[in-house]
Parts: sequence; C-alpha cells; structure tokens
Amino acid sequence: MRLSLSILVFILAASNPVEAQSWQPPADTDRCPSQWGAGDQRGSGNHMSARTVLRATGLIRTGTVVELSHVLSDTMPFFGTRKFEITTKRTFMNPGTNRRGSNEEMIHGEMGQIGTQFDAFSHQTIGDSLYNCFRLDDIATRSGFTKLGVENVGTLMTRGVIIDVAAVRNASPLAANHEITPADLQAALREQNITLEKGDAILIRTGWSRYWGTDNTRYGNASPGIGVAAAQWLARQDPMLIGADNPSVEISPNPDPKLSLPVHQILLAVNGIHLLENLKLEELAAKKVYEFAFVIQPLRMKGATGSTVAPVAIY
Amino acid sequence: MRLSLSILVFILAASNPVEAQSWQPPADTDRCPSQWGAGDQRGSGNHMSARTVLRATGLIRTGTVVELSHVLSDTMPFFGTRKFEITTKRTFMNPGTNRRGSNEEMIHGEMGQIGTQFDAFSHQTIGDSLYNCFRLDDIATRSGFTKLGVENVGTLMTRGVIIDVAAVRNASPLAANHEITPADLQAALREQNITLEKGDAILIRTGWSRYWGTDNTRYGNASPGIGVAAAQWLARQDPMLIGADNPSVEISPNPDPKLSLPVHQILLAVNGIHLLENLKLEELAAKKVYEFAFVIQPLRMKGATGSTVAPVAIY
Amino acid sequence: MRLSLSILVFILAASNPVEAQSWQPPADTDRCPSQWGAGDQRGSGNHMSARTVLRATGLIRTGTVVELSHVLSDTMPFFGTRKFEITTKRTFMNPGTNRRGSNEEMIHGEMGQIGTQFDAFSHQTIGDSLYNCFRLDDIATRSGFTKLGVENVGTLMTRGVIIDVAAVRNASPLAANHEITPADLQAALREQNITLEKGDAILIRTGWSRYWGTDNTRYGNASPGIGVAAAQWLARQDPMLIGADNPSVEISPNPDPKLSLPVHQILLAVNGIHLLENLKLEELAAKKVYEFAFVIQPLRMKGATGSTVAPVAIY
Amino acid sequence: MRLSLSILVFILAASNPVEAQSWQPPADTDRCPSQWGAGDQRGSGNHMSARTVLRATGLIRTGTVVELSHVLSDTMPFFGTRKFEITTKRTFMNPGTNRRGSNEEMIHGEMGQIGTQFDAFSHQTIGDSLYNCFRLDDIATRSGFTKLGVENVGTLMTRGVIIDVAAVRNASPLAANHEITPADLQAALREQNITLEKGDAILIRTGWSRYWGTDNTRYGNASPGIGVAAAQWLARQDPMLIGADNPSVEISPNPDPKLSLPVHQILLAVNGIHLLENLKLEELAAKKVYEFAFVIQPLRMKGATGSTVAPVAIY
Repeated sequence: MRLSLSILVFILAASNPVEAQSWQPPADTDRCPSQWGAGDQRGSGNHMSARTVLRATGLIRTGTVVELSHVLSDTMPFFGTRKFEITTKRTFMNPGTNRRGSNEEMIHGEMGQIGTQFDAFSHQTIGDSLYNCFRLDDIATRSGFTKLGVENVGTLMTRGVIIDVAAVRNASPLAANHEITPADLQAALREQNITLEKGDAILIRTGWSRYWGTDNTRYGNASPGIGVAAAQWLARQDPMLIGADNPSVEISPNPDPKLSLPVHQILLAVNGIHLLENLKLEELAAKKVYEFAFVIQPLRMKGATGSTVAPVAIY
Repeated sequence: MRLSLSILVFILAASNPVEAQSWQPPADTDRCPSQWGAGDQRGSGNHMSARTVLRATGLIRTGTVVELSHVLSDTMPFFGTRKFEITTKRTFMNPGTNRRGSNEEMIHGEMGQIGTQFDAFSHQTIGDSLYNCFRLDDIATRSGFTKLGVENVGTLMTRGVIIDVAAVRNASPLAANHEITPADLQAALREQNITLEKGDAILIRTGWSRYWGTDNTRYGNASPGIGVAAAQWLARQDPMLIGADNPSVEISPNPDPKLSLPVHQILLAVNGIHLLENLKLEELAAKKVYEFAFVIQPLRMKGATGSTVAPVAIY
Repeated sequence: MRLSLSILVFILAASNPVEAQSWQPPADTDRCPSQWGAGDQRGSGNHMSARTVLRATGLIRTGTVVELSHVLSDTMPFFGTRKFEITTKRTFMNPGTNRRGSNEEMIHGEMGQIGTQFDAFSHQTIGDSLYNCFRLDDIATRSGFTKLGVENVGTLMTRGVIIDVAAVRNASPLAANHEITPADLQAALREQNITLEKGDAILIRTGWSRYWGTDNTRYGNASPGIGVAAAQWLARQDPMLIGADNPSVEISPNPDPKLSLPVHQILLAVNGIHLLENLKLEELAAKKVYEFAFVIQPLRMKGATGSTVAPVAIY
Repeated sequence: MRLSLSILVFILAASNPVEAQSWQPPADTDRCPSQWGAGDQRGSGNHMSARTVLRATGLIRTGTVVELSHVLSDTMPFFGTRKFEITTKRTFMNPGTNRRGSNEEMIHGEMGQIGTQFDAFSHQTIGDSLYNCFRLDDIATRSGFTKLGVENVGTLMTRGVIIDVAAVRNASPLAANHEITPADLQAALREQNITLEKGDAILIRTGWSRYWGTDNTRYGNASPGIGVAAAQWLARQDPMLIGADNPSVEISPNPDPKLSLPVHQILLAVNGIHLLENLKLEELAAKKVYEFAFVIQPLRMKGATGSTVAPVAIY
C-alpha cells in the first residue's frame, strides 16, 4: 500500500493531537540552577542594564507617551474571586484656622494580581517548587514570601516590541480558541519587519482587550494566546518580559484539557521570565508603532507575587 | 524716646516671624478657575507633553537608573492609622497533570497614601472646596471621587531636579524644626548651578529619610520641610510636581500652631500642583546628580486620592 | 344609582393606591425627643429588663434551642456591594517542642450589615438626622459613630413571637409584591391565638427565606414584607425589635415608587425600634412554635451601624 | 539517715522542676478517635442539650443579665499583628422623596481571634494534625476550613461556673507568672462551695482583665493562667468550655521555655474542649455570683477558626 506524504502527515497528526500539545514540567535537575545562577531571584529582570536603557532611550523620537494599562476599578474583569475595592475615608477636618480637610481611602484587593498586572516568580509553582527551585515551605509566610517577591524587580526600561498577531492573522480579536504558534509570531515579525533582541519587552496583540469593560464575562471565560510551543520559542529569544492584551498571555483553557495554564510554568518557573497581563495595545497597533521605549514600575511590595502596573510606551 | 519693656515686647511680637508665617486660605473667587481653566482636573499634570518628555530624554546619558522609593512593608513608618497589610493566599493547587500551584495575596491599606506617595487633588480641601473649586458633596462617593481622582494622571516624565537643602545648609538631616525658606532653595540652586524651568519635577532633599526604617517614630513625629513662603515661591516656578524625602514635603508641624499643613492646601488646592512624599534621595545626593530624567507611574485607581509609587531618576 | 359596598371599596382603593401608601418623614419636632427621652441612644432596647428576661425564661419548657440565623459564607445573598470574605492565614508553626501550629483568618466585609443582621440606630437617617435627632455631622467619624453605635445594645432576651403571615395567607412564600398589612398581622395573630405585649421580639414570617442560597438573585431582587401601615401599627405595639425572614423586613421595593424603604425610617429613625433581617424561621413555623424565649447577642462593635448575629429561640 | 517530709518534698521538687512541668503531645493513636467518636467535629459542644439548657434555665431567678465581653474597638489589646478596623461608609443618600440616608461600614480584622473570643478546633494543631486527627492538608483551603469550622457550634447554653482563683489566692490580679494548679482550682471551688458538673462552662478568674484598656502592653506580655496540670484536671471534669479573663486561658509564657502554649493543644486538639479568652468577670466576682445560666452565640462563619463573642451570665 502506498500513501502520499501528505496523507501520512495527516494520519500522524490526527492520530494523536493531544500528544503533540502535551507537556510535562521538567524535573528540578533539568531546570535548576537557572541561566542566572543558583540563588538568583531576578531571572529575566537581570537583562535590565544601562545597555537596555540606552537602547530604549534611542527609540524616543517624538516624545509621545501611550498608556498601556486599563484603569483600576470595581467594574473591570476579575479572575476568580479577586477584587479591587475602594472605601472612601471621607473628610477628616483637621484642627486649625485653615480649614484643611483630608480625604483618603482604604483599598482592598489582590493588588498583585488585578488589572494590568506584572507577575513575579513567587506567583507560580511546579508542585512545591518555584523559579530556580526555591521551595514553597522555605519561602512562604502568612504575610508574603521571603524570596522571589516583586520588590526585587524595580523599574524596567527596555526596547518594547509589539507582535501584532491579530493583524497578521487578519482577525481582531483572534478567535477564543486560537493558539498562537511560533509560525504566527514569526509571520507577524516578518510583516512588521522587526527582529527580536535579547532583553526585549515582547508584547503580543490578540485584540482580546476589546471585551475589557464591554463584555467582562467573555473577556475572562476563554481567550486566545500563546501555546506551549510559542512560549518555548519566545523563551529562547531571552526577553526581559512577555506581555499580552489578554487575561493570561497564554491561550486559556489550554487545548490539552489535562494541562492548567502550562505557559505560566514554562515562563515563570522554568525560564524565570516575567509575564505582563491585560495590556491595552490598541492605540499602538492602530498607529503601527511596533518598536518603542517600554517603561514599567511594579510596586515594590515586600514579598508579593506581583503588582498591578501602569506601563507606557514612549517613542 | 523711651519705651517701657512691655511696649517693646509688644512691638517685637507684632512685627514677628509668626505673623509673617501666618496664612489664610484664599477665597474661592481668588483661586478659581485655576490657570488651567474652569473644570480642569489635571493641574500641574498639564505640563506633561512631548516637550517635557524629550527634554528629559536628552538627560539620559549613561543609562543609569536610580530608585527613589522605599520598599512597601508593614514595618515602614505610617502616618496616623494608615497601614499596609499583605495576607498570603497560599497555594491553590490547580487541577491538571502539570501540578501548577498558584499563590497570591490580599493587600489591604491606604494604597493611595502610604510609602513613597503621590498626591492627587481629591486628597485635600479648603473647607468643602477642592482644587478648581470642585465641591466635596458633588464629587465624593462611598467608593471614590467622581472628579480629581488619580486615574487622571498617568505616567509623568520630565526633567527632575534635586534641590539639596541639607547639603547647602550643611546639616543632613536638617533639624526637625527647620522651615525651608525661599532663600534656602535659592542658595542650594546657586550652589548646584541649576536653574528651574516650568514643568520640572522639583525634589527637595532634607536628609530626613535617614530615619525611615531606623527610627520610625522620629521619622513621623516632627520633620523639616518647606514653609508657606517657600511653597509660594515654588508655585511661581510652575513645576509639574514638588517632592521631598520627608513625610509631608512641608515642615510639620507648621511653626504657626494655628495652621495644619498649609502647604498641602497651597500646592494641591490653591495651585493644583501634585506632591510626592517619602522619597529616597540619598544615592543621587551622594553622587551629586542634580538633574535627570524623572519618571513616575501613579496607579490609575479610579477615584482615588493618590497612589503609592516607585519613581526613578534616569541619567 | 346603587353600588354594593364591596364595589365601592374597590373603586376607592383602585382610584388612588399610591396616595394611600404615600408617606412623608415627620418633622424633627414631631419625633424628638423620643419616648425614651432626649439624648437616649437605646430606643426599644430600653425594654430589656429583668421583667422581659423572666417572662422569656418562663417560656423555656423543653430546653429546645432553634437557630434562627443563616451560616455566614461568601455564597450567601448580599445586598448591593456588601461582602463577606475569609482569607485563611494558614499555619504559623510556633517555636517549641510541642509543634503547635496556629491558624487564623482575616475577615473582611460589612460585618454590621450582612447575613442575619441586627440594625442599630446609626444605620439610617432622615436627611442628616437620625434617631432622637442626633445629627450626622455631630456623630459620624471615619471609623464609626460616637453615638447610636451597636455597642450600646448588648444581649437582648425577651419573649419572641412569630407572626406567620405566610401561613395565614396560605402562600409560602408570599408573592414578591405582597405588602403585609395590619389586617394580615391581626389575622395571623388571631389564628395563632397570640396577643402581642410591650417589649416582645416580633418575628414576621413571609416564607421568603426559601430562596436564600437556592436562588440568591431572586432572594434579593424584590421581596414581600410589611408596608408603611403595618410598620406604624407594629410600632404602636411598642416591641423590643421587629424581624423577618426577608432582606429588609419591609416590602421591597415599596409600592410607592417615590419611596425608598420607608419602613426603615419609620422604625429606626422615627420610633427607635431595632430591625432584624434575613431570619430563618422555617423550623419554628413547621412546628407551630409561635412563642418562645428569644435571645440575641449583637457584637459590641464600637460605633458600628449594626451586627451580623446568630439569635435563637428557646422553648 | 532521716529526712523530714518537707525536706524530701523540696528535694524532689527541686531536682527536676522542668521535667515536672514538661509535656509532650500524645501520639495520634493515643488521642483519636476522640471520646465523641471518629469524624466528630463538635467535641465538647456535644454536651449542649435540652438537659444543659434546662439546668441553666433553673438558675435564672432575678432576671439579671451581666455582659462578660469587652467592647470591640481599635484601642483594645491585640495579640501579635491581629487588628480590628472599622471604616465608615458614610451616607449613601437613596433616591426617593423620603430622604433616606444609609450608613454602613467595612470591618476588617481577625474576627475569629480578637476581643472576647471563642476558639473552634480548626484553630490549633499538633504538627499537621487537629482535633480528632483531622489533617491540615485535608481541610485547609485559602478561604476557611472544610471541617472543624466555628459554624458547627451554634448557641451554647449551660450552667456557668466561676472559679475565682484571684479571690482564694488573695491576689487580684494574680502575678503574671502565677501558674494556676489543680490545687488552686480545688481550693477556690471549696471556698465557693461549688461542685463542677459535666457540661459546665468553667470560667476562671485571674483578675488580669484590669489591664485591658488600661495597660494593653502589660495585658498582652505575660499573664497568669492555668498550667498543664490544671488543664488536664479540668479536662477530666468534661466541661462544655473553659474560659478565663486573660489572653490565653493558660499561663503565658509557659514556665517550661521549651513549650509554646501547651494548654491550647491539650484542650482544643487532644480533648476537643472549646476555649474562651479575654472575658470580663469583675462584676460577677464582686457580687460573688459563682453560678448562673451562661449563654454564648459564636458567629456561624463558615470555616472560621473561632469567633469574637459577647456572652452573658443570667441569674
């Protein structure tokens, strides 16, 4: 019996689609110490240097600043039970002839994991092991982590690059079940005539942010994003962070129903690369501004797993 | 002519510096609309423009980034009953073969008014009137302000200038009861050979941050800072913001015991100029770096009175 | 022309149902001081005395205790944005050879106004005036009320009486738009052969609690309860408190669309009678136990507007 | 050689004071299942029955009610980082002609473990094992415990008995390092002419509450209370709960420096007996009312480790 090559490929592919997708976390010995050395807590944040700052500075030509974050409010989409709550402490009228009233507010919520948000390495584990094989029991306390907290990050400034997959696939937004592949990323970069460099802030556009605030249920239910293969390809480009305009950067749920957000483990725990979720990229995409100075200031909250942020593109 | 002692004392008292210090909030008609027009909510934030960004960019020469904020933790100094609390939500082990554990935390506190902090115009009133004569009853809700919230600010990037009063007065820190005067500021600027420009981020060094985390009680009790005259002089320089390495920017308590933090009213309510408190300026001062690109990203919390921040100097 | 009486009544009733319902808050001078005297903060709580305790004690015959509250959890119905949140502070392992682990939890929510809840007099106003004409500006602070707080209440023990309107109207639950009238209450009392006495805890059964936890949206949307006329009739009975197995004790929304929960004002502000909401009365109703010792222990939270509670019937 | 008895006793006592005190948690097999059977979650709460209610009812003669709890406020003593915070949500003015203003408050704190407080069995562990050998990993979630939560308790009503050790030892308060022994308890009971019965609520008076609110630091630092021997003796009396007017019921710190609050383990984990801390017993002691109906209503918070409470004595 003779089979053409294309038929053979079809049979092989169809026979085991889950196998193709499937992924297992690597053994600790295969991932630790990280490329940044035993005990390192900064991971991809180590790329931050005078070189990345000056490279980014060179991209500022017109002085335009574009906000890449959503406004924080209690009407934004929330993952699971997370929340953001403001309770106004209305006017305390101070003693004094100058009638000085002072307002403030209690804020309550998962401030590390809401809104446009930056993930630190204490956020995700493989079993009881985190980035660089720190052990959960060794670093977790009732009130934060003694290692891998977001206070280790500080301001990051580097070249930012948008990979506009929604544009190159001519679908804005991408379908909820669209797994972004390495081929998608490469096609978009070709189209945009951009070459990635080590230490970039790579921001992937899916177009999904159109549902932020307009259809929060849809925004959070299932969303397009990078899959395992794309995450591994991106990790090899050695960026400073990987962001997207969707809830999880990665496709959710994963096409392999046995896996729960594996890209979070691949990037945070295995490779020590920060994630940046719920970006707003529409303005830059409309202007076809794909390269710019990227600046982000995660709050320096001791022992926290991440930070809500308000990053910008400057060009 | 002969004067009795009691008459002499009376004359000296009447002529004296406390009278000179004393200040009354101006009538609404004398301060509204602001220079930025009726209904304006951005005040000094209106200085933010391509021009200030490019001017700041031109100051980035070596790619050095210096953090100007303190780390947020429950052991930092707090004003009054304010607090910052992290409660770890330890490992939720997700279903899936990839054993993905997820950590996050509840954060609770006055996130607009703790740590290194940026004041929006909803923070302070003169009676029931705020910046640009917005009325408290018109804009206050149980969960934020409908006008003048910190979400109106966004990233600010401009030339940053340190005025090192501690250095020029040869007292680091300045004494707790040292009221910084216009003469102090001018002397420091002369010594540093710096001229202020409209739209600058002016950062005043008192040296007081040495007690942050080392003697929190002393840090918060009484502290040196600008007085009424200096605030009025600085307001005339028309900056984008005024910051300091002390709890209130201004001297606290005010030398006039009848006044409660009048500089807060002069800058926020009367002139619409943002304040930035609890900075960390020691590294820049030690290096005598007095001019740099200043970048700050207040959280965009809808209706909040301010934001804890993590600004940087870049040069 | 001749009309039968019933037709005449129908015409009169139909011609102006809203007018009949409509109510205006009385002037301050018509309601203050309260029957308990100027400056009184305890209102109907003043009924609590050895007499009410002994009367209740006399009703304890079998030693049976019936819980009248719902369990507090984040899956219960909430009014508006109220919430109840438990964040476990998992195991702090204390030093010592005895391996003592300690668990506790942060609780966050409107603990005065969730679950089965008891209303204090600081909860509701008529304009800026509260029970006994205390003024809001005089007693409200950022962190509680200096008068009328729930800490003034303490344990209440008195005769409890159920008025089972659902049973007498043969509709369990009553329709969502059923306004309970004085006639409804009187019919039920007759049927049950019960006479109200001063100082009773009057608990009205609508049957609405069947939707608690089974259809939370329905539970909170619109619900049957007493109207203005019934509230005024009940107030004249001079009870220690009035409770019900619905969200607001009163019908919600009020049949008069111009009124917002007027019974809250009639009972709390005008008459100084405590309210008790979200009761669970099914077990007592099924057993036809209409009279019992009623015991409630509001938390003594300084300056709070109410307390979540776990009252019981004992008989 | 002959020794008098007193010298012999001295030698025995002096030879090993720590051994005498020292205690090791029993093996799981020695303490599980509890006397209430495998899987039981109610422990000493199982004593609650018609019998205890009627016995208590019989003690109500004058109708007097005495509050045994402290008022909850942010100025009370707190253990460690625990807190109680009220943030007023001032007046929401509802739409409607009746000008109904509504006040409520956010409450934030360890509501299971502050103020006068009742301990459930999820509060304390021996290693990773709790009462009746429930395992921590099996029952702990991010938001409460699936077993042994305080919602299993409900109202308790039983005979309350005060053991006034402070009176019998003629020291009110007892010295901070006074370990209450079985002999102390027995002497007080003899003096008071009281015999303990199964199912009693045993309340031990140390007099320590005099420092509550007057010297909070002293109140919390070191305090008198029952030791290991007294706890074991009391457990054999098989009460419904054991309370005291001090922070921990037990002496703190334990005289054996190697042990951390062992009585918590002995009563909660080993014997399944509830604890009740920070009581206010002065009024009853002054009146020498040693026997009464005791009523407590722990909040029914799903999965919580305890509840702040407002119990009373009725007699």
